[in-house]
Amino acid sequence: MTQRVAIIGAGPSGIAQLRAFDSAKKTGQDIPEIVCFEKQDDWGGQWNYNWRSGIDKYGEPVHSSMYRNLWSNGPKEALEFAEYTFDEHFGRPISSYPPRAVLWDYINGRAEKSDIKKYVRFATVVRWVDYNESTELFTVTTEDLKTGKTASSDFTHVVVGTGHFSFPNVPEFAGIGTFPGELMHAHDFRGAERFAGKDILLIGASYSAEDIGVQSFKMGARSVTYSYRTAPMGFDWPQGIEELPLIDRFEGSTAHFSNGVSRKFDAVILCTGYLHHYPFLPSGLALDSPNNVYPDTLYRGVASENNNKLYYLGAQDQWFTFNMFDAQAWYVRDLITGKASIPAAGDQRISIDAWLKRFNAIETAEDEVKFQADYIRDLIEQTDYPMFDLDEVTRTFMAWKNDKKKNIMTYRDKVYPSVMTGTMAATHHTPWLSELDDSLERYMAPVPSESVEDLAATEKAKSK
Amino acid sequence: MTQRVAIIGAGPSGIAQLRAFDSAKKTGQDIPEIVCFEKQDDWGGQWNYNWRSGIDKYGEPVHSSMYRNLWSNGPKEALEFAEYTFDEHFGRPISSYPPRAVLWDYINGRAEKSDIKKYVRFATVVRWVDYNESTELFTVTTEDLKTGKTASSDFTHVVVGTGHFSFPNVPEFAGIGTFPGELMHAHDFRGAERFAGKDILLIGASYSAEDIGVQSFKMGARSVTYSYRTAPMGFDWPQGIEELPLIDRFEGSTAHFSNGVSRKFDAVILCTGYLHHYPFLPSGLALDSPNNVYPDTLYRGVASENNNKLYYLGAQDQWFTFNMFDAQAWYVRDLITGKASIPAAGDQRISIDAWLKRFNAIETAEDEVKFQADYIRDLIEQTDYPMFDLDEVTRTFMAWKNDKKKNIMTYRDKVYPSVMTGTMAATHHTPWLSELDDSLERYMAPVPSESVEDLAATEKAKSK
Repeated sequence: MTQRVAIIGAGPSGIAQLRAFDSAKKTGQDIPEIVCFEKQDDWGGQWNYNWRSGIDKYGEPVHSSMYRNLWSNGPKEALEFAEYTFDEHFGRPISSYPPRAVLWDYINGRAEKSDIKKYVRFATVVRWVDYNESTELFTVTTEDLKTGKTASSDFTHVVVGTGHFSFPNVPEFAGIGTFPGELMHAHDFRGAERFAGKDILLIGASYSAEDIGVQSFKMGARSVTYSYRTAPMGFDWPQGIEELPLIDRFEGSTAHFSNGVSRKFDAVILCTGYLHHYPFLPSGLALDSPNNVYPDTLYRGVASENNNKLYYLGAQDQWFTFNMFDAQAWYVRDLITGKASIPAAGDQRISIDAWLKRFNAIETAEDEVKFQADYIRDLIEQTDYPMFDLDEVTRTFMAWKNDKKKNIMTYRDKVYPSVMTGTMAATHHTPWLSELDDSLERYMAPVPSESVEDLAATEKAKSK
Repeated sequence: MTQRVAIIGAGPSGIAQLRAFDSAKKTGQDIPEIVCFEKQDDWGGQWNYNWRSGIDKYGEPVHSSMYRNLWSNGPKEALEFAEYTFDEHFGRPISSYPPRAVLWDYINGRAEKSDIKKYVRFATVVRWVDYNESTELFTVTTEDLKTGKTASSDFTHVVVGTGHFSFPNVPEFAGIGTFPGELMHAHDFRGAERFAGKDILLIGASYSAEDIGVQSFKMGARSVTYSYRTAPMGFDWPQGIEELPLIDRFEGSTAHFSNGVSRKFDAVILCTGYLHHYPFLPSGLALDSPNNVYPDTLYRGVASENNNKLYYLGAQDQWFTFNMFDAQAWYVRDLITGKASIPAAGDQRISIDAWLKRFNAIETAEDEVKFQADYIRDLIEQTDYPMFDLDEVTRTFMAWKNDKKKNIMTYRDKVYPSVMTGTMAATHHTPWLSELDDSLERYMAPVPSESVEDLAATEKAKSK
């Protein structure tokens, strides 16, 4: 059988894979037949905001955990595509922490520039993937969600780009079943407007908790309480935000914390992470891993050790995002087309073990960023993806962490230079804390007249 | 291959199927090998309350649409099992509209009385069902949600008992994507306590809307507004509840209705129904139907016309519930064991068309109840399930509708005699409108001392 590649998902990872093949095609190479299955009506994955929560209009789990007024929580300079820069897309410098719509526009711009939409079957969900040992083919069974028609087709390779921030991890807490207030997982959070004047509790101490809490504070929550399991985030929080240890139990609307403190809340948001969950894959092929920067059983972080024709993109916990997915996609492309090759099983294991050894020795956030930078460097060295200054990105990450530490409420007003083009980001016309409109139009508009007043309001807000 | 039957789901329908086989076994008949797959940790289906919404702890869509303080919205006398009465279970008369926990206890009591739990594989989801034309077997692929292990096994027959009130139908409304208040489908509604003092909007005019609205009013909502598409429910609502026509658009927290009225809301609940959704079945086998009392393509409402070894239980819109599932399950059992037989394809179609003709002539609610009573009678006549007075149940339904019409806030205080035993239901110790504790313990307790005061409070509340 000639090569046929199924790509599951058309988010940043799936698009990276499509673009990787497109890039090879433009240099005159033969590429396999490609079909990308995307269960949403449009591409962009997480960046494709959906007001629905829980189950989507087709009866499928809502993919995206996106919310209104989400602005990038890391500098865009750390995620820039090496082969499609922000300068190229926007034509002028923009700020370092753009809102969702702006990042979606950037992803979409790269994708639209290539002739890759023709490969994507939208509103088509993958129901089941079977591998036949004798034919060495994958049978991919899909459903066209608009018609309900199911169909099966054989593929030589499968690339899983469905991400791992879509299926919430929802632990049990004593008494939570009768908590009378609003109760949701971060996955179902769509906006904080209604928490104005409310006391809200966020269970968790990672990025979801941090950002949803800060977002709620920005939108006027009366108080924001975080509950951590192992360690507090430890930012210099403004008055009205506080960290407490783990919940012991709920009684009505009161949460009792393990340190004896009790408080009443109007709303609880479980920021308790996500599951690696691949309901379309049999065990053995489905990645089974906690969320970390080096999931076991993936050679070079992408090729399933159990089946070298099955690949995962973006399965890692992520400091680097878009450009890491690119590095992975370019490498997977070369594995499929034979420009690169996978060693024998024993050597795959030796490679994985070597990375795991280093992974297990990680002690600090900086170690982890450097680990991921080295991982990406190793991938890019195998392919024709443009190498970029990964050490400089690491320094950008460290500057970002430092800026956050200095002021968690204003770090998004900082700017950094592009690692790809050297262009310095522009200071945005309105400070993040006073900008309540996250639209592309408002973001790209010239300095709005109310910005000066906004600035004054922000200065007031951030004085603690 | 000897007969092997896969039952998908252990809710009221799946339990009915297990009980049907168990009943035959107790009369000395040989029964097939049976495996029942249930994705939840316990049986009871909709009656198994889960505080989670959206996605459950295993990463699967939450099955149950159940909420705290749900009391039966129809008289229990209309759903009583003909072969396991309320008298047998509770040993004394109880009221006609018990809360969830009491009905779960009743379902569970019948199930526990039989030795059927051994057939159920809990926390096991069916991923995919394939029918092989040459072997004439179904391959059922499942995942053990606790271990993540997938497995496939062949079956001669498949019974689908997954219900059709689990996958929400969520239409789009202009501007809803930026509605700032709480926004959910009825499927994700878990309790109305937090709507005290709030203005809430329910979109829909069927049972979910009716009951969630009334429930919210009971729990202290400041106002309850219903939005209907075709016709209002038309009850004599108390002050604070009102029906308006369809939403034209949302602007911020304001809903604009098609009659020009505009109102601000704190919360919106989409009571817009559910989808027949069988993500584990290929098209052709998956039932594709709107929610009505006679879905096309099912012979005698259970056997798939496309594959006579595939059966659906409870696929109808439901006036009758538990006892209808029993009638269906007993008949399906007899089809499988050969005590009953399915006619040739042409005759199946003639039968379905005859029922559809009568279905299409239905004009009133009473017509529809009688239609469903006749449908059940036809099934029971084929089997050894105890016949019961279906005309009397129809009269009970009509009395119920009349009581609701008289007073939508107090109809649950009415009582009816059992069709099975003649036992008159007991007036409950506390009027529904003042009973805020829906536990089995409180329900079964002797008259609580505060009931007299409650009664006075209720009398006051219901005076409009």
